[in-house]
Amino acid sequence: MARAWHLMRRPNGMPVMDDFALKEVALSALDEGMVRVANRWLSVDPYMRGRMNDVKSYVPPFALDAPMDGGAVGEVVESRADGFAPGDMVLHMAGWRDEAVAPAASLHKLPALGDPQAFLGNLGLTGGTAYFGLLEAAGAKEADIVFVSAAAGAVGSAVVQIAKARGMTVIGSAGGADKCDFVRSLGADAVVDYKAGSLLKQLAAAAPKGIDVYFDNVGGDHLDVAFALARQNARFAICGMIDGYNGGEPAAFRYIMRVIAARIRVQGFIYTDYMSKMGDFYRDMGGWIASGEVKSRDTVVEGLKRTPEAFLGLFSGANVGKMLVRL
Amino acid sequence: MARAWHLMRRPNGMPVMDDFALKEVALSALDEGMVRVANRWLSVDPYMRGRMNDVKSYVPPFALDAPMDGGAVGEVVESRADGFAPGDMVLHMAGWRDEAVAPAASLHKLPALGDPQAFLGNLGLTGGTAYFGLLEAAGAKEADIVFVSAAAGAVGSAVVQIAKARGMTVIGSAGGADKCDFVRSLGADAVVDYKAGSLLKQLAAAAPKGIDVYFDNVGGDHLDVAFALARQNARFAICGMIDGYNGGEPAAFRYIMRVIAARIRVQGFIYTDYMSKMGDFYRDMGGWIASGEVKSRDTVVEGLKRTPEAFLGLFSGANVGKMLVRL
Repeated sequence: MARAWHLMRRPNGMPVMDDFALKEVALSALDEGMVRVANRWLSVDPYMRGRMNDVKSYVPPFALDAPMDGGAVGEVVESRADGFAPGDMVLHMAGWRDEAVAPAASLHKLPALGDPQAFLGNLGLTGGTAYFGLLEAAGAKEADIVFVSAAAGAVGSAVVQIAKARGMTVIGSAGGADKCDFVRSLGADAVVDYKAGSLLKQLAAAAPKGIDVYFDNVGGDHLDVAFALARQNARFAICGMIDGYNGGEPAAFRYIMRVIAARIRVQGFIYTDYMSKMGDFYRDMGGWIASGEVKSRDTVVEGLKRTPEAFLGLFSGANVGKMLVRL
Repeated sequence: MARAWHLMRRPNGMPVMDDFALKEVALSALDEGMVRVANRWLSVDPYMRGRMNDVKSYVPPFALDAPMDGGAVGEVVESRADGFAPGDMVLHMAGWRDEAVAPAASLHKLPALGDPQAFLGNLGLTGGTAYFGLLEAAGAKEADIVFVSAAAGAVGSAVVQIAKARGMTVIGSAGGADKCDFVRSLGADAVVDYKAGSLLKQLAAAAPKGIDVYFDNVGGDHLDVAFALARQNARFAICGMIDGYNGGEPAAFRYIMRVIAARIRVQGFIYTDYMSKMGDFYRDMGGWIASGEVKSRDTVVEGLKRTPEAFLGLFSGANVGKMLVRL
């Protein structure tokens, strides 16, 4: 029997461990065209919080008392499908579990390009989100002054490095000295510690001319400060608003009126909006990884049992870089 | 001596009459190239509130204890400039006063196209703001579902009519039964009365499929409701946020996170961003006025002395259509 995490009830605000249960599940028969995969790496991502609510969004909600899913990298252990053999590493969406039997069409065989878990990070959802958000949704260009929140996180740390690879000035925000040091080590021109005093004053000092681009992972005060300091024709790519994912008071904006005077463009986006440009992404990101311009840093939690703990850590700042579960 | 309104101090929140003083001013000599103009119509507009604060914005702040300015239509009474003769009607920026001596280059001679005050409204700042905001900043197209706030105001009433002329479905918001009737008379498909219960429920009922475009004159709750009900790839043109012009609590947004899932694009803009397309504007708006598809409705306050009162009325909902002062 395989084991898979189930969502047992819809969280009220911040999820708690009792919202989840690890249960045995029967696997499908290994019919013709099917592949059995043992998962090696599971991805946990902030967007999964939205799937725990019963609301229409860009991905369907998790069903209650049913296996959850999400990005995963696994190893083929048995195959009745052409092109898949034991030992192959595959990327797929049957995460939050240890083993799966899945149709070959739902599996993406990974090339032998370094660490396979990179396909859950800089070569996958989070790296692609950073790439398309910065370059397409925000239309960031060489010499732009870019502000990115949650810059020590998986998406944010990729944004910092992509922006530097493309000749931009980058200011990252992170919480605490260790994370700020990490963001600086990625090449950021300046770092603001949102736990160390006024975000507005710190960003104004770091960007005395203001910002051309804001890459938002956070919402709330970070977004408001970006409104305050936006230059003419600034462009904001709205990737996430983790500050609001678990409810609480609605965000108040003191500076949103600057949208008019500064002609700010705010654009919400999702990674999958840009699937037609995946070729560009693999070419550029592959090149930057090969040249060392983009490096990965993962926070690894060990064991299927700790998957919910890894997920919850995304909201308490437990991760530097990409949060992964290793099985 | 001419008389001109002066700003005597920077308003704290909602301006009051004592912030203004009507004073005699000496006119410049009527040198070669100068024209003396007797004003007939003065424009008061919400954007002028921003100019009363001492902050950098898209137009410079009013100086203290100095003549204010703004859009005006006047009649030439004396001229030492080629091309200007007594009786000519001119559009210019020496408003908030009864008479001015100005260089010919600062005057725009009006063609004999109906009422000259239309150049302060549908053929001027407010009509152009509606036209460029709807069609350029929001990129509204035939069959779009458009929501516009302050739809009984000068800009909003033009948005309603332009949208109908271009084959869109239009829902306008206004405060009170009289204004709602007026918006309906402009051709709006539905009207919501923001003073008569939940804006969210009313708009959800009026736009059961959601909205493609939001033309924002108001900010605050109206903008939040537009976030709540935006369809995929909705586009918001942010023209004004009159709810916030006079200070008070910063607006809280419960639904701003929908920017991501619905891929909303929010674009701030100013009329003057589109000066290169004024030819299109005059052609289209001139045609719609000629055909009766766009009609003007003005709220007229009589007498220079009442100019501040007319201005303050913009914030208490005193106007239907364009607010003008007739001298």
